[in-house]
Amino acid sequence: MEGLDLSRKTAELLPVAEQIFAELRRASRDGEGVTREAFGARETAAQEVIARFARADGLRVERDGAANLVVSLPGRENDGRFIGVGSHLDSVPCGGNYDGAAGVVAGLLALALLARNGITPPRAVRLLALRGEESAWFGKSWIGSHALLGLLSDADLAQRRSDTRRTLLEHLRDVDADVGAIAAREPLLRPGAMIAFLEVHIEQGPVLEARDVPLGIVTSIYGNLRHRRIRCTGEPAHAGATPRSLRRDAVVAVSDFILRLDARWSEWLEAGRQITVTHGIVGTDPREHAISRVAGAVDSSLEIRAENEEQLLAFHDLARAEAAAVAERRGVSFALDEPIVNLPAAMDPEWVNRFEQICNEERIASLRMPSGAGHDAAVFAHAGIPAAMLFIRNQCGSHNPREAMQLADFRLALRVLVRALLGAGA
Amino acid sequence: MEGLDLSRKTAELLPVAEQIFAELRRASRDGEGVTREAFGARETAAQEVIARFARADGLRVERDGAANLVVSLPGRENDGRFIGVGSHLDSVPCGGNYDGAAGVVAGLLALALLARNGITPPRAVRLLALRGEESAWFGKSWIGSHALLGLLSDADLAQRRSDTRRTLLEHLRDVDADVGAIAAREPLLRPGAMIAFLEVHIEQGPVLEARDVPLGIVTSIYGNLRHRRIRCTGEPAHAGATPRSLRRDAVVAVSDFILRLDARWSEWLEAGRQITVTHGIVGTDPREHAISRVAGAVDSSLEIRAENEEQLLAFHDLARAEAAAVAERRGVSFALDEPIVNLPAAMDPEWVNRFEQICNEERIASLRMPSGAGHDAAVFAHAGIPAAMLFIRNQCGSHNPREAMQLADFRLALRVLVRALLGAGA
Repeated sequence: MEGLDLSRKTAELLPVAEQIFAELRRASRDGEGVTREAFGARETAAQEVIARFARADGLRVERDGAANLVVSLPGRENDGRFIGVGSHLDSVPCGGNYDGAAGVVAGLLALALLARNGITPPRAVRLLALRGEESAWFGKSWIGSHALLGLLSDADLAQRRSDTRRTLLEHLRDVDADVGAIAAREPLLRPGAMIAFLEVHIEQGPVLEARDVPLGIVTSIYGNLRHRRIRCTGEPAHAGATPRSLRRDAVVAVSDFILRLDARWSEWLEAGRQITVTHGIVGTDPREHAISRVAGAVDSSLEIRAENEEQLLAFHDLARAEAAAVAERRGVSFALDEPIVNLPAAMDPEWVNRFEQICNEERIASLRMPSGAGHDAAVFAHAGIPAAMLFIRNQCGSHNPREAMQLADFRLALRVLVRALLGAGA
Repeated sequence: MEGLDLSRKTAELLPVAEQIFAELRRASRDGEGVTREAFGARETAAQEVIARFARADGLRVERDGAANLVVSLPGRENDGRFIGVGSHLDSVPCGGNYDGAAGVVAGLLALALLARNGITPPRAVRLLALRGEESAWFGKSWIGSHALLGLLSDADLAQRRSDTRRTLLEHLRDVDADVGAIAAREPLLRPGAMIAFLEVHIEQGPVLEARDVPLGIVTSIYGNLRHRRIRCTGEPAHAGATPRSLRRDAVVAVSDFILRLDARWSEWLEAGRQITVTHGIVGTDPREHAISRVAGAVDSSLEIRAENEEQLLAFHDLARAEAAAVAERRGVSFALDEPIVNLPAAMDPEWVNRFEQICNEERIASLRMPSGAGHDAAVFAHAGIPAAMLFIRNQCGSHNPREAMQLADFRLALRVLVRALLGAGA
């Protein structure tokens, strides 16, 4: 490996990267964006694109018990343990082509680079192209990694996909997952087998772009708390005939709730507490609403993210107090569903240091940063598997069709990843 | 007619009224409420209930060129002119059984009472059971009366029904309306033929109940201005990775807009300006929204009602100014569709006085009041046809499944209506 010119070798792979991204886009195009529904047809089509390129490089391709795609490269040690690389292949509805896929393609090309150059890394490496990372589909996030660890509950398996209204269990069956083992909560990954999980991902915010740095090294992943449905119930009434004083208008009440949380969020930021607050879904009931009818009910979602568990729970308390205050003032009621809580996760300090050292040696500018977005890496970290992440700068945000990534930046991440694999176990 | 004991005669008809309302409910039940979709199956089923009872009393039943149901009773004068009575048979989705139907049943029973007692009124009377009054279906209100007057535009005919997404023209065809004449804007009613339109309707607000008065005599009908769709466009973004300062969150912006208008409305009421302001429909886009995604767009409706044209337009200006202020502050844009404007309409002073005189003579407590809700009576009034309305007290608001009406109050309205028909032309 001495003398391996990684700069040149990664450059040679860029046309392949371009081709794979183009094929992924083609397989999942949805208007301006892409849609790869979790445990659905276009997610599977994306797996097949990856599998085809992997086989062309002579790599072993298989599906694990959760129907995740796995591509393997043997290492010099043959004790069954391996380093996992990769990310997820699903996308939000009408999202961008890189969220998730960039990390899968980086992992694939790292394996391909080693294979094409006849290099056997110290440890076996497995690319995991995980399914079902995005919460948009089942409310639940990171389903592929949860399944591998035997962490899916009966309630999770009963969640219905937002488009088909069919359960996760049914969708797992559709893709030939081992639903018996999953329902019995058996780990599909032998404990101790995966000695690290290294995930490349586009940054989903604007920080690296604003700081003019191509790569981020993630130090921790924010926790989040989600209410999929908060139902505000008022009283439906005729719009012309019901005076303001006698209305219990769910639309006005929810607007009040949202603006109160927005004001509190602003105060928290001024006090230096880093959180995010989002109501991504809001709506009156299409079966009942009308232009000339005071809305009797509004459903909305709430998501709070924080680097710190205490702040996460404190803002949640505050949100409930504001809901109670609005209910009192406007004669409505708020029913909050059971929150889904994902605690913050620290990345492995040794891997963080190693990534940073490689960047320094390769003269690649990098930035240590927390991740506001959640990732499968956090799920593995919570399970005690050392995890680390590399962020690639992204120009246009994420979860939208215009998310962007420069191949020049992607290439730097690929270089750092290959070096990390070559150094592992040393 | 001397000696006709209207108190006893109306009492005799109450079991029939009860039976008709029960059959209407059965024909259009939808969960707790009823749904009679404009120019659709359950509206037609309601017509058939009315037609069956009318035929049983030997009344002539037909459908006019707009597929409204018409029930006729000849008068002593046979010059082709008639007094119209009635209301509409459609309902909002999951609405109540009395909004519209109460007036149709009152009209039917007025005719039945005269026919059963062998009484020929001075003027011919026609019950109009109008279709398509509610805006919930096509955005457009009072379609049945507009069609009769040749007032439906090509744009109206191209509106799509909220549930089927098919056009009004197609739905008119389905019910065998004379679409040629309607599209050519020919009046289906000979000018001058209808010498008055008397509409009984439940009050859709709480005023009569609060004042403990069974009947209202409507003096004027509020005008309204409706935006069916106001699109607020921000920027979709990843909820975890996009800081508050860089968001252009359409949900927060629309909440701000709604609360600003609510505050302005409150100020106007304090200044004595009687208006209503309603956002009955609000929603993120189900094809794109997600719990973990900052919403890039929200659609909402806006309806303003006022007794006075100047105030109607002034509040509309104010709403546009507030939208511009929110756009400026929150980095979003608002696109308002072409507003639908219905100007306020005065009821005929002679008929208002006649109703009041009858109430006084019959010792029935009544209240002169404006109608915040719009009605077909306003459409006829705008066309120069003397129109008047009687409101029946209603306990539980309107456009909801729980709207209520006491048969004792309904009977009083029936009594006043029969006396009005007997006195007309005298």
